[in-house]
Amino acid sequence: MSSVAIGIDIGGTNTKIGVVNREGKLLQHTSIETTSYEMVEDYFRGMANAIRELLVKMEGAPALVGVGVGAANGNYYTGTIDRSTNLRWKHSIPLAKMFQDEFKVPSLITNDANAAALGEMVYGNAKTMKDFVMITLGTGLGSGFVCNGSLLNGHNGIAGELGHTTVNPNGRYCNCGKRGCLETYVSATGIRRTVYKLLADHLEDSELRGISFDDLNTKMITDAALRGDLVAKLCFDYTGRILGMKLADTVVHTDPEAIFLFGGLAQAGELIFAPTIKSMEENLMPLFRGKVKVLPSGLQNQAAPILGASSLIWDHSENQKKV
Amino acid sequence: MSSVAIGIDIGGTNTKIGVVNREGKLLQHTSIETTSYEMVEDYFRGMANAIRELLVKMEGAPALVGVGVGAANGNYYTGTIDRSTNLRWKHSIPLAKMFQDEFKVPSLITNDANAAALGEMVYGNAKTMKDFVMITLGTGLGSGFVCNGSLLNGHNGIAGELGHTTVNPNGRYCNCGKRGCLETYVSATGIRRTVYKLLADHLEDSELRGISFDDLNTKMITDAALRGDLVAKLCFDYTGRILGMKLADTVVHTDPEAIFLFGGLAQAGELIFAPTIKSMEENLMPLFRGKVKVLPSGLQNQAAPILGASSLIWDHSENQKKV
Repeated sequence: MSSVAIGIDIGGTNTKIGVVNREGKLLQHTSIETTSYEMVEDYFRGMANAIRELLVKMEGAPALVGVGVGAANGNYYTGTIDRSTNLRWKHSIPLAKMFQDEFKVPSLITNDANAAALGEMVYGNAKTMKDFVMITLGTGLGSGFVCNGSLLNGHNGIAGELGHTTVNPNGRYCNCGKRGCLETYVSATGIRRTVYKLLADHLEDSELRGISFDDLNTKMITDAALRGDLVAKLCFDYTGRILGMKLADTVVHTDPEAIFLFGGLAQAGELIFAPTIKSMEENLMPLFRGKVKVLPSGLQNQAAPILGASSLIWDHSENQKKV
Repeated sequence: MSSVAIGIDIGGTNTKIGVVNREGKLLQHTSIETTSYEMVEDYFRGMANAIRELLVKMEGAPALVGVGVGAANGNYYTGTIDRSTNLRWKHSIPLAKMFQDEFKVPSLITNDANAAALGEMVYGNAKTMKDFVMITLGTGLGSGFVCNGSLLNGHNGIAGELGHTTVNPNGRYCNCGKRGCLETYVSATGIRRTVYKLLADHLEDSELRGISFDDLNTKMITDAALRGDLVAKLCFDYTGRILGMKLADTVVHTDPEAIFLFGGLAQAGELIFAPTIKSMEENLMPLFRGKVKVLPSGLQNQAAPILGASSLIWDHSENQKKV
C-alpha cells in the first residue's frame, strides 16, 4: 500500500489542497474559496470535506501519513496561525490540532515561505544543499532559511521574515505598520509602486502610462520591458538593486550556498536576476563575493506551495526515523 | 585524572593562551606577542612552547583533550585562517592541522565571535538558550549565531559577519573594501569616528575637543558621557540607533531569544543598551516586538575569548559522544 501526504496552501483568496506522494508527485488536487466562509469552523469543515473527496478518488486506498499546511503567519512550534495578515480570523487558530483530531495523523504548519524552502529541499533544486535561502515573491516577500540541512524555525517559530527588513526607515508604508520594508519595494505589489514612482519621476513615454494602478500586474511590466519600454526596464533595475543590496546583508548572516527566487516576479528571468546579482555582488563583503548562487526555484509554480506544505510531513517522518 | 582543553585567542597584537577545565575555569594562562614573529612557523613554535610550559605547571598531569582557536577569518570547516585582516601572514594558514600534528589531539578553529558565542553557551548566560546571537564589539564588530542549539557555520564556514552588513552604501570607508559597513559605526573604532563627526557637526563645548583621534578611546567617551558631556551622550545615541536598526534586521532573519553584547563598548552599560533597545524595537516588525532580549555577555571580558576558543573542544567532544 502506498503512502501519501496532504499539502494545503492557505491563501487569502483561495485554499489549495493536494495529495502528494513521497516523490513529490501531485496525485490529486482541488481548491476552495477561503473568503466564502464566515466562521473558521466552517472553513475547516470545508477543507476536511475536500480532503476526504480527494482521498476517495485515489486508487488502492493509500495510507495518509499526515497533513502539512503552509500559511502566512503559520507557527511551526504551536501549530497555530496567529495574527493573520490575510485571513478574516485574527485570533490564534489551532489548525494543526484540528487536523490531527479529524484525521488521526500528524499535522504540521509553517509559514508559506518555509514550506516552499522545504519543498525545494525535498523535491526541487536544493536536494543536495544543506544551506540555502528561499525568497518567495508574491503579493508580499516571504523567506525561508535552511541551515545545516534543517529548516530554521527560531526561538518563537517565526524566523525568516526578510520582507520586513528595512530598506529605508522613512520609506514606503508597509502593511505590517512599519515604513520602508523590503516587501514594499520587492514583490508584485512593490514593483507596481515602483512603476508609479518612476512614471512620476521620468518624462519618457511608456505603455504603462495607459494602465491604472489597480489594473497593473507583474506580467504587463515584464512584457513592456521585453518590448524595450524604458520605464519598465528601469523598474526591474530599481527592484533588483534593492533586492541585491538586502540579499548581501542576508548572505553575511547565514553564509548560504544559494538563494532561490520563486514566484511571479522571479518569472521575469534575466530582467530581475541580472540586476539583483550585480547589486548583491557589489554590496557583498569581498570574502563572500562569487560564492553565492542566485537561482530560480525548481518547483513548478502552481503546485509548489502544496508540494512544500506536504514536504513538512515527509521531512518530519524521516527525521522521526533517524531518532 | 582531570581533563583540560587549550583555548587560544589570536589577536593582531597579542595571542592569549589558556588552560581551561570543563567547568570553564581558566586554570593557567599566558600570552605571546603576535607581531614579534616574522615567519608563521616561528609563531606556531612560540604558541606550542607556551602551551607546553603551561601544561608542565599543572598539578596532577591533566589529560589534554584538544586545542581550540578563535581568530578573525578562522574557518571551522577547513581549520585554516584565510586572508587574515589583522595578521601579517595573508596566505591560508592550516593551523588546526599544525596543532593536531604537534599535540596528537583534535584541534578546531573558528572566528573569534563564533568562539565567544560558544563560550556564552557552554559557560555563560546562554546555557539554557538554543537560539541567540553574540555581538562582539572590539576594534571591529564580530558576530556569532547559535540556532537550534548549534553554532551556525554556513556553507563556506564563514557565517555571521554582521559587521559587514550595510548601513549606508555611500557611508564610511571600511577595511573590507566596502563603504558604510556596520562596524564603521558600531565598534571601538566606529564610535571614535562618530565623536569626530559630531564634533564637526555641533557647536557645543566638549571635553573630547581636547583629545586627538589617535588618543581617543571608548572609556574616555563613556566617562565624558557619564559626566554629562553632550557630544559624548549624542555619540552613544547615534551608535545605539544604528546598531538597533541593524539588529532589527537580524532578528527577522533568525528569530533569536536574545542578543548578547560583548566587549569594551558593551561595558558602557545603559549608555549603549538603552538607545540600542529603543531603536531595535522601533525598527522591528511588530510581530517580533517585545520578544527579544538584548543582554550583556556573562563572560568575564578578559578571559572570554580564551574560554570561547576552549569551548570549541568541549562542544565537539560532547557532540561526538552523542553520535
